[in-house]
Amino acid sequence: MIATIQIPSHVQAEIDLVERNMLLQAEDFHSDLKDTLKALISSGGKRIRPLIIILISKMLNSNSKQIINLATAIELLHTATLVHDDLIDGSLLRRGVPTLNSKWSPAATVLTGDFLFSCSATIASRSENFEVIELFSKTLTVIVNGEINQLFSSHCNTSKEDYYQRIYAKTASLFETSAKCAAILSNPPKEDIERLRKFGYALGMAFQIIDDILDYTGDQLKVGKPVGGDLRQGLITLPMLYYILENPTDRAVLRILDGKCITDEDEIDRIVRAVAKGPAIEKAIEEARTYVVQAKECLQPFNDCHEKELLLNLTSYTIERNL
Amino acid sequence: MIATIQIPSHVQAEIDLVERNMLLQAEDFHSDLKDTLKALISSGGKRIRPLIIILISKMLNSNSKQIINLATAIELLHTATLVHDDLIDGSLLRRGVPTLNSKWSPAATVLTGDFLFSCSATIASRSENFEVIELFSKTLTVIVNGEINQLFSSHCNTSKEDYYQRIYAKTASLFETSAKCAAILSNPPKEDIERLRKFGYALGMAFQIIDDILDYTGDQLKVGKPVGGDLRQGLITLPMLYYILENPTDRAVLRILDGKCITDEDEIDRIVRAVAKGPAIEKAIEEARTYVVQAKECLQPFNDCHEKELLLNLTSYTIERNL
Repeated sequence: MIATIQIPSHVQAEIDLVERNMLLQAEDFHSDLKDTLKALISSGGKRIRPLIIILISKMLNSNSKQIINLATAIELLHTATLVHDDLIDGSLLRRGVPTLNSKWSPAATVLTGDFLFSCSATIASRSENFEVIELFSKTLTVIVNGEINQLFSSHCNTSKEDYYQRIYAKTASLFETSAKCAAILSNPPKEDIERLRKFGYALGMAFQIIDDILDYTGDQLKVGKPVGGDLRQGLITLPMLYYILENPTDRAVLRILDGKCITDEDEIDRIVRAVAKGPAIEKAIEEARTYVVQAKECLQPFNDCHEKELLLNLTSYTIERNL
Repeated sequence: MIATIQIPSHVQAEIDLVERNMLLQAEDFHSDLKDTLKALISSGGKRIRPLIIILISKMLNSNSKQIINLATAIELLHTATLVHDDLIDGSLLRRGVPTLNSKWSPAATVLTGDFLFSCSATIASRSENFEVIELFSKTLTVIVNGEINQLFSSHCNTSKEDYYQRIYAKTASLFETSAKCAAILSNPPKEDIERLRKFGYALGMAFQIIDDILDYTGDQLKVGKPVGGDLRQGLITLPMLYYILENPTDRAVLRILDGKCITDEDEIDRIVRAVAKGPAIEKAIEEARTYVVQAKECLQPFNDCHEKELLLNLTSYTIERNL
């Protein structure tokens, strides 16, 4: 993603610093696992959360020394949740594609995630701001509660309200906390902190809706996982919610509305193709666009500067990637 | 344990407050899991860490409002590590006794532990002391690293140095942090903070050595788990280290010194009985006593008061329980 928006070299240097800080944590890890942990941290990809944090701090002319720490802590927290997700998805996806290999046994996966949690909490504790530290751990509670709801609530749930709660917990909460904490550390007027919190929230919601769309339309090689994964896991996301509304007599829709999941692989393939080709995708993109407009409106009151422009570009890019 | 030392009612009231605070966290948890989480929190037992924290704060005449928060956060962190331990032991003990039932699938166990971590971090963040918050998360790193070392290092390791590192990570580190943080929040002279850190450390080391002894000598019903569990897991603890020194030609000892573990159940039974009857236990108790003496010496410079006496009794009790 970063390749498509021009990141100035001084911002890229700070992103690199965040990556170096993250990798430093692995130095304290058990020697047998160090290389695997380093590979995991290095493969983290887009670094969109650190980018939001650094750009907001620069837009607010902050000279806080804590911004790199905050970005590192947030990205480590994100990585930790992904590590535990792997284990959770692995145990749900017994008949699906195995995501864990023998090197990452459940015990090692749990402890690696815990290690990253503890590192992220230690770095967050150095932010010298109690509000930031408390927001940080509360966001972990939101993320974990979201995963527990997903695990224990009935599958193939077609409530749109539940969908929004799910994507807030999964993605938008950490985007919101990233933006809000970057603002808090930059010490602007209170109303600017609230604007930037809303910006992070809206950007995160758009980001996850597009992720959910890509689970139907994405190129398997580019997205890095097989399409249709959500439906296979019994997760009804926004494209499928629109498909259900438009195709109430489809046999798979009838089955889902009857509280059952689709388990037949051919049937899953048929639905994924039908969703990807139909108007459900465009409607879901339209919703993501609404969030993008909201996010951009939150930035409007800030003085024009290069970093504001980059944040606006980043916001646009959220819905343009791979579509 | 509490039953054997007389806890004054105002201290008991504060312990009860800690328990209520812990239970309050469960209110935010998924409704299907709330009762199980409440049962887990209620069954926590001895509350020795909260007791240390409250007694130290009272001995130092502290009026910090953060002591109950600290005690709650530390006990929740302890509970969280136990939850993840269950999963880890479960996966190691495939041929042993199953500790996880279908209600506590690996995914639910991981997330329940994560939830407790996030709650404990949030409560710790309210301590309004950056040093306490940082110590708190660093201790989690120590505990997790210890578990990773235990998981990935060769089993049936007979290094005494490794044994001490293991029990520090497993138990003494959190005792040390409990005592040090209680002292920091009570704002005494710097040398008193260091004395109380050492007190917590020595008490924690004694506590774990006695736990390891009880794994050989304990009454299965009282200890709550089958005796010989450590040896069965390939963990060589202090009683076995002394047995090895004294019985270099025992066939099981020869096998262990050859880098192999004992897997035969009859052979494990024989060794557990032999260790329990022999002088190895008395030597291990002697080491625990040395730590108890150290712990008591750390308290010596403090003015005599009822809470100091209770801390001394608690220290004595550490090696007297069930022996």
